[in-house]
Amino acid sequence: MADTLRIGLAGLGTVGVGVIRLLETNRDLLTARAGMQLKVTAVSAQSRTKDRGVDLSPFAWVDDPVALATRDDVDVVVELIGGSDGPALELAKAALANGKAVITANKAMIAHHGLSLATSAEAQDVALKFEAAVAGGIPVIKGLREGTSANQLTSIYGILNGTCNYILSTMEDTGADFADVLAEAQDKGYAEADPTFDIEGVDAAHKLAILAAIGFGAELDFDAVRVTGITRVGAADIAQADTLGFVIRLIAQADVEHTPGGDRLLQRVRPCLVSKAHPLSGVDGPTNAVVAEGNFSGRLLFQGAGAGEGPTASAVVADVIDIARDEVGAPFSIPVANLSPMLPAESGERTERTYLRFTVTDRPGVLAEITAAMRDAGVSIESLIQKGRADDGGGDVLVAMVTHEGPERCVRGAIDLLEGSDSLTAPPLVLPILPD
Amino acid sequence: MADTLRIGLAGLGTVGVGVIRLLETNRDLLTARAGMQLKVTAVSAQSRTKDRGVDLSPFAWVDDPVALATRDDVDVVVELIGGSDGPALELAKAALANGKAVITANKAMIAHHGLSLATSAEAQDVALKFEAAVAGGIPVIKGLREGTSANQLTSIYGILNGTCNYILSTMEDTGADFADVLAEAQDKGYAEADPTFDIEGVDAAHKLAILAAIGFGAELDFDAVRVTGITRVGAADIAQADTLGFVIRLIAQADVEHTPGGDRLLQRVRPCLVSKAHPLSGVDGPTNAVVAEGNFSGRLLFQGAGAGEGPTASAVVADVIDIARDEVGAPFSIPVANLSPMLPAESGERTERTYLRFTVTDRPGVLAEITAAMRDAGVSIESLIQKGRADDGGGDVLVAMVTHEGPERCVRGAIDLLEGSDSLTAPPLVLPILPD
Repeated sequence: MADTLRIGLAGLGTVGVGVIRLLETNRDLLTARAGMQLKVTAVSAQSRTKDRGVDLSPFAWVDDPVALATRDDVDVVVELIGGSDGPALELAKAALANGKAVITANKAMIAHHGLSLATSAEAQDVALKFEAAVAGGIPVIKGLREGTSANQLTSIYGILNGTCNYILSTMEDTGADFADVLAEAQDKGYAEADPTFDIEGVDAAHKLAILAAIGFGAELDFDAVRVTGITRVGAADIAQADTLGFVIRLIAQADVEHTPGGDRLLQRVRPCLVSKAHPLSGVDGPTNAVVAEGNFSGRLLFQGAGAGEGPTASAVVADVIDIARDEVGAPFSIPVANLSPMLPAESGERTERTYLRFTVTDRPGVLAEITAAMRDAGVSIESLIQKGRADDGGGDVLVAMVTHEGPERCVRGAIDLLEGSDSLTAPPLVLPILPD
Repeated sequence: MADTLRIGLAGLGTVGVGVIRLLETNRDLLTARAGMQLKVTAVSAQSRTKDRGVDLSPFAWVDDPVALATRDDVDVVVELIGGSDGPALELAKAALANGKAVITANKAMIAHHGLSLATSAEAQDVALKFEAAVAGGIPVIKGLREGTSANQLTSIYGILNGTCNYILSTMEDTGADFADVLAEAQDKGYAEADPTFDIEGVDAAHKLAILAAIGFGAELDFDAVRVTGITRVGAADIAQADTLGFVIRLIAQADVEHTPGGDRLLQRVRPCLVSKAHPLSGVDGPTNAVVAEGNFSGRLLFQGAGAGEGPTASAVVADVIDIARDEVGAPFSIPVANLSPMLPAESGERTERTYLRFTVTDRPGVLAEITAAMRDAGVSIESLIQKGRADDGGGDVLVAMVTHEGPERCVRGAIDLLEGSDSLTAPPLVLPILPD
């Protein structure tokens, strides 16, 4: 056994600096647990001179990160550049091709190129690890790959985007509306200057696609994730949900349908109503949580910090230790060649309860029009919650309702029937209710 | 790589039968994930003829479980006999000595003999794994050994005994008293006919000692766990806690004190008041949950079913898969020889808030006597909660109070001052308040 595992670190943003700090702070215990020293030998980033609060002088500096892939003093490349393509992907490919292990926190790259990278890693018999790509410091990749490995999973779902969760739980606590809380989150650094990937659900979709591939043994298929963001969730919706005993959370959920034509994978990211009795309802702020339901394990919950310097560095270095211990295997739990290609599932015949909110003009007959559309589409209304004034200043009113459990296609049918109606002044908001 | 991993299974109780069922039900996916077939070749139990609902005819029958240790058709021994010593220990020792991997769900055996067994496993370079020994189906051994491996843990705590948690949360839901709920739990099979190990906290202590060794790199020291069971928690205490915003849970907790004389390990199992805002307060029924707080990861929570056929079998077979994948290493995360011997920590100077309940005679001056003892011992009272009639039928009254945060030794001092007082008709109940 070598006495040192030599790390080439590409990217010195928050997480990269966190990795350097962690390796320094916890050095002795890391050596004990890894059975060898873990040592950064070379680093690469955009600016050599920027003050990052850590001493880079012990490390070789490399201007071109891809050069880390061929250095003799690097055993493991840690890629923290980010971005699905570009230098991150080029570096990962080159490192694996050169027989070096790769660790990455890059969910976009794994969601788009995980299978080809894993194929390369398997061909070279080197590790490709990405614990930090999903749910920050929570060991959920390991949890699904190894912890629940004896189970056929029936469902994987959770809260995978800390920015959205911060926004939704802050709206809940303060009654403020989406735009105001987003602006505050940007001020505090919980949301990016361009928050699109987070608030539109793309980031959660990247993570979900990775978890689904591992948990279900499915070929990773990011493009098949159906994504709805949180931008249309209003303070009024959160207030309505509260009176009904729910909170609203952005839920990423995947499961497999066993059909005569083969298994089909359903992957969705949607804001959902979550009962206050459900463990996910208590997940506030930037916290992440993942539930895995197995046919023998039952429901397992993994919860913790979904992002940030410390938690993400913790996940990166856990991967380093696994490599030092030689406790690694197929990146997606089974070899890429054995993953099942699964077509996307249709969801129309699935049943769920649904929250619907309409913004309508305040005139006679509107409610009759909506409820007639529901009736004609076969949607059974459990409760009509409110008919109150909208906040849009235009004299519109909100009509919110909850349906009985019924096929999703019926709700879609009702919405279709109302398409183009003069009564509706905005597209309806449709939020499923997460089953307990 | 061999194409089959051959399992010798000792013990055909609930979990043993669960393992057979799981291996059968999930056979194809297990083969895919393990990279080979997982096959029971030989079994041993007390009765060969008992109807267990599974077909044992494919397996060789062995009357003496220890004989599994030397069979040529066994690669891995799965020990599900139970008991800290006796045939379970004899089998585990013999199997390791014969170079066979051992998997066990036996918390008592690992708590008492884990270090010597691990030493033997390390000497033979074979696996010793015991995920199922702690928290049933929750992969918390893996979570601490690998998931948080980059962290110096500051605290490990949680709910590790499903029987106690079922009793306490049922008392909370129904207002019933301890003895009635225990009897009901025994009827339902949630508590053993002899529930002593569960309700006195010994089972949780076994599990805590195992987690502490892995999480802190400490030599396992079960004898140093300070244990208080739940038998003295009354319906009145749960009601008082509720009005204060708390639930009562049996909390197993370990941390390390860094002293000039070396690190010291504090391990305790105690009923505690848990704020309703704390994630552990929502853990109801037989569910288990473990919190690990790391210096980089922050707070991580692992939650799920803590016992039962399916969840425990899930953990056992996950260990089998790890062995098939050759993803194993030191049982306690670092080699036994490198674990730190840690003396038990003194807790006296630690500060906490405390709930105190006195059962006293109903006469003038009693409250003055108690509060004087508090004052003299330096305990500051935050609130005196109630002075109501006790349920003992003897005319006694209950006095409950919550202290401000202060040194534990002061509370003990106050209790000592009241020792032998005629006013107290029962020993005081002292429950710490778990910090948020």
